[in-house]
Amino acid sequence: MTNDVTYPDWIAVDWGTSNLRVWAMTDAGEVLAENGSDQGMSGLEPDEFEVTLLSHIALWLNDTPTPVVACGMVGSRQGWAEAPYRAVPCAPLGAAQAVPCRDARISLHIVPGLKQERSADVMRGEETQIAGFLVDQPDFDGILCLPGTHTKWAHISAGEVVSFQTFMTGELFDLLSRESVLRHSIGDGGGLDQEAFQGAIADTISRPEAVATQLFKIRAVDLLHGADPAVSRARLSGILLGLELAAARPYWLGQPVALVGLPAVNVLYAKAMAAQGFEPAQHDAKKATLNGLTAAYKAFIAQV
Amino acid sequence: MTNDVTYPDWIAVDWGTSNLRVWAMTDAGEVLAENGSDQGMSGLEPDEFEVTLLSHIALWLNDTPTPVVACGMVGSRQGWAEAPYRAVPCAPLGAAQAVPCRDARISLHIVPGLKQERSADVMRGEETQIAGFLVDQPDFDGILCLPGTHTKWAHISAGEVVSFQTFMTGELFDLLSRESVLRHSIGDGGGLDQEAFQGAIADTISRPEAVATQLFKIRAVDLLHGADPAVSRARLSGILLGLELAAARPYWLGQPVALVGLPAVNVLYAKAMAAQGFEPAQHDAKKATLNGLTAAYKAFIAQV
Repeated sequence: MTNDVTYPDWIAVDWGTSNLRVWAMTDAGEVLAENGSDQGMSGLEPDEFEVTLLSHIALWLNDTPTPVVACGMVGSRQGWAEAPYRAVPCAPLGAAQAVPCRDARISLHIVPGLKQERSADVMRGEETQIAGFLVDQPDFDGILCLPGTHTKWAHISAGEVVSFQTFMTGELFDLLSRESVLRHSIGDGGGLDQEAFQGAIADTISRPEAVATQLFKIRAVDLLHGADPAVSRARLSGILLGLELAAARPYWLGQPVALVGLPAVNVLYAKAMAAQGFEPAQHDAKKATLNGLTAAYKAFIAQV
Repeated sequence: MTNDVTYPDWIAVDWGTSNLRVWAMTDAGEVLAENGSDQGMSGLEPDEFEVTLLSHIALWLNDTPTPVVACGMVGSRQGWAEAPYRAVPCAPLGAAQAVPCRDARISLHIVPGLKQERSADVMRGEETQIAGFLVDQPDFDGILCLPGTHTKWAHISAGEVVSFQTFMTGELFDLLSRESVLRHSIGDGGGLDQEAFQGAIADTISRPEAVATQLFKIRAVDLLHGADPAVSRARLSGILLGLELAAARPYWLGQPVALVGLPAVNVLYAKAMAAQGFEPAQHDAKKATLNGLTAAYKAFIAQV
């Protein structure tokens, strides 16, 4: 009697605030299968973490303990187990923290996040994406922009994260488009008027302090003259992105810049940056995460 | 048999997005009684407007139709009946719009809001507060700041609103303190650390473009070093107020400025402004609203 099922050598896990993604992996970094859900950290109680993970990977487990390498908010103080921040400047990956599990079929390791004492900043998950990006471009010297709910700009040199800075751009967009008075003008559609987007970026870069009044103007213009939701949405997006680009200018000015994000968000940032005169390379965040988790597995787990 | 009840000559109504306030008034502007609730426009369906108002004023009504003068979002397109905006420059009060009611005991009039075509802006309710302020200071020539969910700065001259500008400061504070990642650091308390507040205002005025990263820093500082919620709250408040003061600078520079808001909010704005070298007079918004509604009643309703 033979068993035809191929069990993975290890399992990669990206567990953030809002989502959980898992991959069945070989030692060579090949993906055998993947799974995922919206069961992010924020919706779970501590006693649900292990059972939730097992429900996503149970089919991949056998009697031998399978190494699991996880990154993201799973390692925060409110997560499964705190993997203390490492201080920059440092390489993006540090030793993954072994976490005891009730189920003997898994052996969990969590990648620690990074902190910057001055000026105070933190990241969890992006350090793994940075490591994944560096797998393909180990000699990269410049700026990585990792757009998301809390966009990170990181200065990379000699394989290390030298410094970084977080912007709440994504969360501001979500809150303002869904919860504020602007929701009446923006609607649920996804369209974005390019001219309005570029105009809002230029306006904001030249006069960033006017943001709070420019935001209300989105509503006022719609009330007085009527506005296509795609224009209002583009104005909101452009105002917030323009504000971020203005503040990040000391980071990107005269430096090579690469984007590591979801493809649709990368495109948005690339368009905003193009108007500022630079054309960043675009890299898929999901691929970077997987490459980074693989690097962590090879460096800290495989030889154990 | 005599009836000892004194019925009001008219009823004043301030009906905004979140609250409803009503006053039983004499022709001389004396308050006989008042009532109110959180039954603002945003929580009601159109067929509930009249019955909601009646439930607040029923005890004050007799067989003679009582004039009711209302201001605020009650006059918006999504309100009870649209009272079209009047374009600045103009006096704050225009003819109140008569609105048919099912109940013959009331005769409803709604004060119109103001609009500014360029740059696009609108107000509903604040025009009544401005009118109320001018009752006491008819010769005021300067800037009124009316802090609130959507703070208004208005240039007043020769009894007219010359121009105005809206800032989403209050709504941004509410969203960020209650819904964003910052809620974990800010908590439910109301305390405000004065030193952190003044520091955040100064930081933001000198570098307004850094707002999105300064906001995240509130969370990062707390995660790395621990921060008193009163400090985090003060930082958030100071960043948003600093941004508003920076953008409103062309308004207030070299001009007399008066505040018309809730007393606690006036104090906050006055402290922020004091650090910028000016000391605005403070006026209670509730009193201004009532004086403005009384002015509207005397000008447009009483003689009818």
